[in-house]
Amino acid sequence: MSNAAPTPPAGPSSSSARSSAPASTADAVELLGLVAQLEHTAFVRLAGDCALAPDVEQRLALSRFAAAAVERRDRVLARVAELGADPAASMRQFDDVLTEFDERTQPSSWWERLLKAYVGYGVADDFCRIAAQGLDERSRAVVLEVLDDASHAELAVAELDAAGSGDGVLSSRLALWGRRLVGEALGTVQRLITQRPALERLVAAAAAEPDGAPSDGGNASAAGTTTPNAPAKVFGELTAQHTRRMSRLGLTA
Amino acid sequence: MSNAAPTPPAGPSSSSARSSAPASTADAVELLGLVAQLEHTAFVRLAGDCALAPDVEQRLALSRFAAAAVERRDRVLARVAELGADPAASMRQFDDVLTEFDERTQPSSWWERLLKAYVGYGVADDFCRIAAQGLDERSRAVVLEVLDDASHAELAVAELDAAGSGDGVLSSRLALWGRRLVGEALGTVQRLITQRPALERLVAAAAAEPDGAPSDGGNASAAGTTTPNAPAKVFGELTAQHTRRMSRLGLTA
Repeated sequence: MSNAAPTPPAGPSSSSARSSAPASTADAVELLGLVAQLEHTAFVRLAGDCALAPDVEQRLALSRFAAAAVERRDRVLARVAELGADPAASMRQFDDVLTEFDERTQPSSWWERLLKAYVGYGVADDFCRIAAQGLDERSRAVVLEVLDDASHAELAVAELDAAGSGDGVLSSRLALWGRRLVGEALGTVQRLITQRPALERLVAAAAAEPDGAPSDGGNASAAGTTTPNAPAKVFGELTAQHTRRMSRLGLTA
Repeated sequence: MSNAAPTPPAGPSSSSARSSAPASTADAVELLGLVAQLEHTAFVRLAGDCALAPDVEQRLALSRFAAAAVERRDRVLARVAELGADPAASMRQFDDVLTEFDERTQPSSWWERLLKAYVGYGVADDFCRIAAQGLDERSRAVVLEVLDDASHAELAVAELDAAGSGDGVLSSRLALWGRRLVGEALGTVQRLITQRPALERLVAAAAAEPDGAPSDGGNASAAGTTTPNAPAKVFGELTAQHTRRMSRLGLTA
């Protein structure tokens, strides 16, 4: 149902695609479905954290973050409905988007779990933020607004920072864990782009944007090495954001 | 902190207590804390159901019910704060309120789980609704408003009704399960009243109400048999509501 809209007139990998030529409705619905699924997954994880949290104050905070993720997901799904597509179907196609990532990155402690949420969702959110540059104005606004609400990340930063600052062993373990996480997260993004032409088109459009990350000349498909069409510029941007994120925790990326 | 307010001038088991003489702030905070804890428990359970649900539509519905439970809990906690007490502390004292009930009533199927939620929360909600009659007007309004939002119960009723109507074996199993559940739920209520003088006072005040369940003459403590002070009238009302609830499902109470 979400694939009913026509594909855009420009070729799918056109390196001259600009955000001023917004994505087709079908492409927009696909990215919106991904964002909705990620917010839903955040809800499930936060609710699970809440059930495990030993203290009432943490439980209150985590349950509110979980409820906020539901609200954000539903804002994205409302946009899907506005575009005439089926909200549930838009999410369903990304049911397993994090299954492999989760299998490969089982945290072995509360700190690893916290860093996984911060790094894993950080990369996913950054990817969606970049791809959103290729969307129509209203869809882009919804995605950026939803992803900007990073209150839960602040909690993770505060807790991880406090725990790591006095503990060199924990810090170096977490730094190692962070490198593992970002590797798996970038692999997940790469698979997504390869398997989903709509996301590839949006990312190509974003990479052609002049105001994105340090540009390699505007040619989105020129620098990919492992997969020829994947815009290396986007991976450069994701890696740079990850480094910033880790350094906020005093951890080596 | 929640026990800082003075006890009411009337004796704790006074059978002449009326809702026109509202409970002390400490007693109100205690009932509000119980309601908040029950809503929080509902959130955790609904989020767990959501993580297990096989279908996107069910997941969407359950996550919204879970988020609504957080919102209801927070409305109750806001009233606790208005009364000058500590919201987290008011909940903390009821941390284990359902632990024993849960241990004794482990559902062995999705249907048993659904009926447990409907019956277990039904009894708990009815108890809080009755005890709320003894509260000050504003606290009572908050509790009744929060407990009136029974959208999740409607879902349970629809699913259980559809499943049981064509299946006599399932129906009679669920009828048996319902009797077990209500027995344990009433036992939990009885322990709560015995262990919590504030709740006993509120229930005594409610039992003295002329517009409650069929009255035994307004003497709240006259008819208790297993525990002398427990108002049998309240248990009669809880049992009657349970019977109504089961018959909505076509099940024998």
